[in-house]
Amino acid sequence: MSAIEITKESVKEIVDLVDTKNQKELLPVLEKLFPADIAEIFDDLNLDQAVYIASLLDPQKKVDVLTELEADVKLKFLKGFDNKEIASTFFAYMESDDAADILNSLDSISSKEILRNIEDKEHSKNIASLLKFPENTAGALMAKELIKVKQNWTIKQCTDEIRKQAEDVAQVYTCYVVDEFDELVGWISLKRILLSKESTKVESIYNDNVISESTYTPGEEVASTMQKYDLVALPIVDAFNRLVGRITFDDVLDYVKDEAEKDYQMLSGISESVESTDSVLLNTRARLPWLIVGLVGGVASSLVIGNFEAELAQNVQLALFMPLIMAMAGNVGVQSSSIMVQGLANNSITNEGLWGKLGKELAVALINGLVCSALLMGYGFLSGNSQDIMITVSLALLAVILLAAIVGTVVPLVLDRFKIDPALATGPFITTSNDLLGLLMYFLIGNAILA
Amino acid sequence: MSAIEITKESVKEIVDLVDTKNQKELLPVLEKLFPADIAEIFDDLNLDQAVYIASLLDPQKKVDVLTELEADVKLKFLKGFDNKEIASTFFAYMESDDAADILNSLDSISSKEILRNIEDKEHSKNIASLLKFPENTAGALMAKELIKVKQNWTIKQCTDEIRKQAEDVAQVYTCYVVDEFDELVGWISLKRILLSKESTKVESIYNDNVISESTYTPGEEVASTMQKYDLVALPIVDAFNRLVGRITFDDVLDYVKDEAEKDYQMLSGISESVESTDSVLLNTRARLPWLIVGLVGGVASSLVIGNFEAELAQNVQLALFMPLIMAMAGNVGVQSSSIMVQGLANNSITNEGLWGKLGKELAVALINGLVCSALLMGYGFLSGNSQDIMITVSLALLAVILLAAIVGTVVPLVLDRFKIDPALATGPFITTSNDLLGLLMYFLIGNAILA
Repeated sequence: MSAIEITKESVKEIVDLVDTKNQKELLPVLEKLFPADIAEIFDDLNLDQAVYIASLLDPQKKVDVLTELEADVKLKFLKGFDNKEIASTFFAYMESDDAADILNSLDSISSKEILRNIEDKEHSKNIASLLKFPENTAGALMAKELIKVKQNWTIKQCTDEIRKQAEDVAQVYTCYVVDEFDELVGWISLKRILLSKESTKVESIYNDNVISESTYTPGEEVASTMQKYDLVALPIVDAFNRLVGRITFDDVLDYVKDEAEKDYQMLSGISESVESTDSVLLNTRARLPWLIVGLVGGVASSLVIGNFEAELAQNVQLALFMPLIMAMAGNVGVQSSSIMVQGLANNSITNEGLWGKLGKELAVALINGLVCSALLMGYGFLSGNSQDIMITVSLALLAVILLAAIVGTVVPLVLDRFKIDPALATGPFITTSNDLLGLLMYFLIGNAILA
Repeated sequence: MSAIEITKESVKEIVDLVDTKNQKELLPVLEKLFPADIAEIFDDLNLDQAVYIASLLDPQKKVDVLTELEADVKLKFLKGFDNKEIASTFFAYMESDDAADILNSLDSISSKEILRNIEDKEHSKNIASLLKFPENTAGALMAKELIKVKQNWTIKQCTDEIRKQAEDVAQVYTCYVVDEFDELVGWISLKRILLSKESTKVESIYNDNVISESTYTPGEEVASTMQKYDLVALPIVDAFNRLVGRITFDDVLDYVKDEAEKDYQMLSGISESVESTDSVLLNTRARLPWLIVGLVGGVASSLVIGNFEAELAQNVQLALFMPLIMAMAGNVGVQSSSIMVQGLANNSITNEGLWGKLGKELAVALINGLVCSALLMGYGFLSGNSQDIMITVSLALLAVILLAAIVGTVVPLVLDRFKIDPALATGPFITTSNDLLGLLMYFLIGNAILA
């Protein structure tokens, strides 16, 4: 069976069954759906409908559906339950990282009450321990559930441990090997355990080439480590190299996708994570700030040009090529800044350093600028425009391309140096400042040549 | 041990050891490095140096390094070996999908010679069978290596099968269950096998809720299915539901990242996959085409404005606000088109349909347009600019924002309908056409009001 497609029609059918409380027909439908599918359907349900469906699911599936919900839908859905129910119905069956995620978006009174009401005190402590890590660090991303085996155990003991933990750790890919001090010393794959004799000692077969990260490693480093080494799970250690959690591939996949979307939206001038399916108001709120940046930039441009009104009146043809100058300044600036932002994200920039990068970007800009200026001069000849105007425009074009490349290269690097997200330097911000600088340059050159 | 950082200095040390053929000191260094690290170092080596390092690695590690190399470095490195060596040294130990990837970028004569020289004929056939699938489909992304067990087997038989395949299938996460016709009927996790008795029958414990995709499913659908259902591996079936391969999470992670980078670069006007570390020439070639699009657009703008030269000469102040109109048209167009492109990529658009989307984007544009126009009128009052000019600019601004939203929404949808990558509609292309339309609108409104 391939992935199920949730259509408008199938959602409508389910809503009808829910509204008529037709449990008999609903149960087999829900049976066939995966948690992620039911979560998708929840997007279109009101609270009562969602709570009714949840009441028909078995405990683990109910929790899996909750985990798959989008952040805002999740909080809305949980409003259908009191804190005691949340603890006993959901948190009891939930992996620690998913539970901590939810607590992070609740108020502290509810959080405490939920934690207090979890029966398994160990589980409650695990969840609470994740709350102390700063957002977007390995500590905040990891789950406490994992299979830990001791160096001096036999394979039989490992299998017993896996059996004991089987309920809590849904997905087992690797067992982590620790020494007597609980320090991480290696790993052993499930395949290896399966193919080894029961009496074999772990220490004689485990792999001591283990990659781990510490709790304070930033999320992007975790993602790039897991991607570089193709890891299905990454063990996380504390400052004393003691094993404290693991991050799995699905978390990283979500993380990589979210980060890419954030950068993409920044580049396109949208300030919040917003989707085409979100409301008109949310879409407006996400875009208006950047438009106002553009508006202010436009007004500033009018003031810059205002200073050259006399020249413009004398050479109206200068106005004809303003769009060209602006468009090129914008394009070059965005090209340079986005290359920088991607380079910074991939950590590929540190090696060459600021001056190397700048030199290279200038070389690229010089070639592109010369080609474009030459093309423009050629067009000038053929079109029969005023020679002086065309020389002005061509010279200004070269200068503006170089300037935009410098701005586009330096601004992201400077932001990064000051620990500000360099992606801010892409999109409307860089375009607007390049417009301004470009026009100023254009009129100064025009002034010098045409005066 | 946390991930190893490859620095300029550590590469230099290794290069020195290679150049002096200091095998004694080099071996323990290479021992400690993971294949992905050695692959990173290869970026900075010439062919002789890389071949020397490869000669010191054991067969499997040598292959793993090759697999981790970037596409261009990989081909350069393989030039150090003849086709016979490539077959016996590399392809013999390589998973089918990685091998097929390489063959796809070689000429057909070399490909055939390599395939002929692989000793294991089954393996050679497997690789060849992957070459027939169109690029970017599940068939082209999958590997043939997987663990397949029969419904009527015992757990003991499964373990034996895993033991038999252990060499070929490096990573085992799940065993796929097939019936007598080789049709995929379910799956069973390694954990389940480990915890079951040897005499247990597969059919009594396997999970029949299996998600699969067919060989012709596009890559983006594979990625979104695996992400939605958090799958570590996805089985691929042929038209008769027979199990023919599997795609693993690491392939999808790479795929998601590559696609995101491609979209990002398209949005920023860079036409090839290029990194800040690539050469000046490659960087120039990737950017110049888009700059020429911008240049042509700029010249077209000058022709549009040229038609209004008389009006401009009379109202020079009109020129002052050209940048504002252009910037806003560009910003709104990119916002709308990038939201569309993301929505299409996430498959969240099909539900509402073209008209619903367009209506929503227009509503957002109307609110943003009214707010921006009002702000601009306010500024006009305070600044003491000519009333007529400010009314013209404000009206034109509203019209241009609405127009840019329509263009930004419709163009990606139309491209998508014609099976063209909608991401083409972001970046310089949309900005340039919006500039043109926006300026035309501006001068037409100016002409009507000021004439």
